[in-house]
Amino acid sequence: MTVFAPDDLTVVPVSLGDRSYEIKIGPGVLAEAGDAAKALGARNVAVVTDQTVAGLHLEPVMASLEAAGINAAPIIVPPGESTKSFAHLEKVCAGLLAARIERGDLVLALGGGVVGDLAGFAAAVLRRGVRAIQAPTSLLAQVDSSVGGKTGINTPVGKNLIGSFHQPSLVLADTDVLDTLSPREFRAGYAEVVKYGLIDDTEFFMWLERNWQDVFAGGAARTRAIAKSCASKASIVSRDEFETGDRALLNLGHTFAHALEGAVAYDGTRLVHGEAVAIGLALAFRFSASLGLVSQAEADRVVDHLRAVGLPTRISDIPGEVGNADRLMDLMAQDKKVKAGRLTFILVRGIGRSFISTDIPPQNAKSFLEAELAEPVPSFDD
Amino acid sequence: MTVFAPDDLTVVPVSLGDRSYEIKIGPGVLAEAGDAAKALGARNVAVVTDQTVAGLHLEPVMASLEAAGINAAPIIVPPGESTKSFAHLEKVCAGLLAARIERGDLVLALGGGVVGDLAGFAAAVLRRGVRAIQAPTSLLAQVDSSVGGKTGINTPVGKNLIGSFHQPSLVLADTDVLDTLSPREFRAGYAEVVKYGLIDDTEFFMWLERNWQDVFAGGAARTRAIAKSCASKASIVSRDEFETGDRALLNLGHTFAHALEGAVAYDGTRLVHGEAVAIGLALAFRFSASLGLVSQAEADRVVDHLRAVGLPTRISDIPGEVGNADRLMDLMAQDKKVKAGRLTFILVRGIGRSFISTDIPPQNAKSFLEAELAEPVPSFDD
Repeated sequence: MTVFAPDDLTVVPVSLGDRSYEIKIGPGVLAEAGDAAKALGARNVAVVTDQTVAGLHLEPVMASLEAAGINAAPIIVPPGESTKSFAHLEKVCAGLLAARIERGDLVLALGGGVVGDLAGFAAAVLRRGVRAIQAPTSLLAQVDSSVGGKTGINTPVGKNLIGSFHQPSLVLADTDVLDTLSPREFRAGYAEVVKYGLIDDTEFFMWLERNWQDVFAGGAARTRAIAKSCASKASIVSRDEFETGDRALLNLGHTFAHALEGAVAYDGTRLVHGEAVAIGLALAFRFSASLGLVSQAEADRVVDHLRAVGLPTRISDIPGEVGNADRLMDLMAQDKKVKAGRLTFILVRGIGRSFISTDIPPQNAKSFLEAELAEPVPSFDD
Repeated sequence: MTVFAPDDLTVVPVSLGDRSYEIKIGPGVLAEAGDAAKALGARNVAVVTDQTVAGLHLEPVMASLEAAGINAAPIIVPPGESTKSFAHLEKVCAGLLAARIERGDLVLALGGGVVGDLAGFAAAVLRRGVRAIQAPTSLLAQVDSSVGGKTGINTPVGKNLIGSFHQPSLVLADTDVLDTLSPREFRAGYAEVVKYGLIDDTEFFMWLERNWQDVFAGGAARTRAIAKSCASKASIVSRDEFETGDRALLNLGHTFAHALEGAVAYDGTRLVHGEAVAIGLALAFRFSASLGLVSQAEADRVVDHLRAVGLPTRISDIPGEVGNADRLMDLMAQDKKVKAGRLTFILVRGIGRSFISTDIPPQNAKSFLEAELAEPVPSFDD
């Protein structure tokens, strides 16, 4: 699945028939943007990015595009989750039209998950669909949101409730740019890396337990962890592009995570997505343990690893109030995966043994959340 | 292709693999909405309609849904082209979320092209795609916009520049509701009916020349004209769902039409879409004649038929100023079909002999428009 090139560049293919594409992972791959856009036949490329990323990485990308003879136009949005809104979607679309992005041209999303989701969605709906290159600059975006074609924006009642499936034509995951992330951001993205081990790869989880410090430090272990994560996601997406079955496994921890993010109104100072996922993973294991599906010891092992890297694992780790179990249940009921009023949970029978459950009575989930919320507040690193 | 049932109900199939669906055409088919939604497995149905249509047709549709045991929620938008906006898309999406429309549920678009395009687009992006029933209530929507899966909204720089391909799961074209249209609205929709004859069906055009008064009067000739139009469109869409080839033929007259609508800022008091199409069809024939592709006599025959039913055929038929040739060329350059900066025109070698042209120098189009704009203003029915 994964091809290691001499210069540490790793290429992960995503097999989706005539929507297949490659994920290029390695130090400095952003410099390939211009040649890649040219190879795809684009004349005009709009680079959508946020103010923070623009200051760090926009100039070399623009230079690469211009060196390849491409007309490149930057579209800069504010950083933060609140940018995934109808208002910013409209602004980005207006920018793409002003840049005369036509069918055959490209949108290049340069940034984290927010930029990737917003710019990818704009590409999906501009002229009923133009192509996109995802150039993720956060660990979370490199291992999750840039791969698989999910795009979208948030609404007041839930995250990502408006969007499209729109596969990129290429993903450029430059591992060098991760050095500009804060430790908190890198850690948050790491929660999604752990997720792939928990879904169906016990061995990868154990490798992460042993090597997480090298992954955080950078170099070959980091590239390998990202490539392994992308290959896991690509494999699941190839089997089920439109989430009618197995793709839902990728939502391990996410039904809880989305509700928690909703509960703090997507306030990134209190909780970023990866942190919500870390708590969600811990909750998925503890909920499964409470249902007798997995041993408490195995749930503890997952929680221990997440805490070892400094991630939160309890609702009470979130600063401030998040509301009661009824509020969280209501937020979970708005999840996209709701079918005929039934909640879908991804549960586990062990580390690397997740499954989709659609028959858990809501009362069980509510009782579990009530018990979690009643726990004494632990200190963050006790 | 077309199956005539004893009770005057006509069913036109649209063959698109696992996205195939039926168009049911005939008097009273709206009463089938409830049974149809139930057969599709929906629990909740949001009926998106506008204030005008709501007063005429909403109640029986709601009654039909409720009689079938469906939770039905109406979402009512203002009438008119300006409703195809980001602001109303956001409102409709909020309404769909409030109505708890989940995957498996349905959006029912009850109205003309504006409601169909807006509600269809909202369905396309809600939770990354829920199913839709199109229940077109204008002639234009019945023969064109409700069939083929194009959805979208307008932007200040052009019509339908933001949208999705999202095939409906069913189209219910109730021919009775057309009796509530104004003569102007019916006539405008008729321009799209004529278009199908001009694209590739000389015989249908000649049938319309002989029978147009019966089509306007209602009854079997009307149902037959609608069914024939839907079958023509379905055939082309089945060959080329995403408009990479032949589907562009459906845009005969539309590159000019969209520019003219842009030039009047979508002011429906001055020009409705079907009228713009009528002028666009006439311009396509006259432009083809100016290029020596078709005889002036054949162009005159098309113009004569359009004028006989009371449709406009010249830019000067539009009340007020529309700007000069440069302005119209700039508006045409924003057309979605622009590729690598080249305008695509649908031209004709005869009635029923249209073809896609991508190699017309812009200067020829501009000269043609300058000549058209310089014509002495004819009275509307001279």
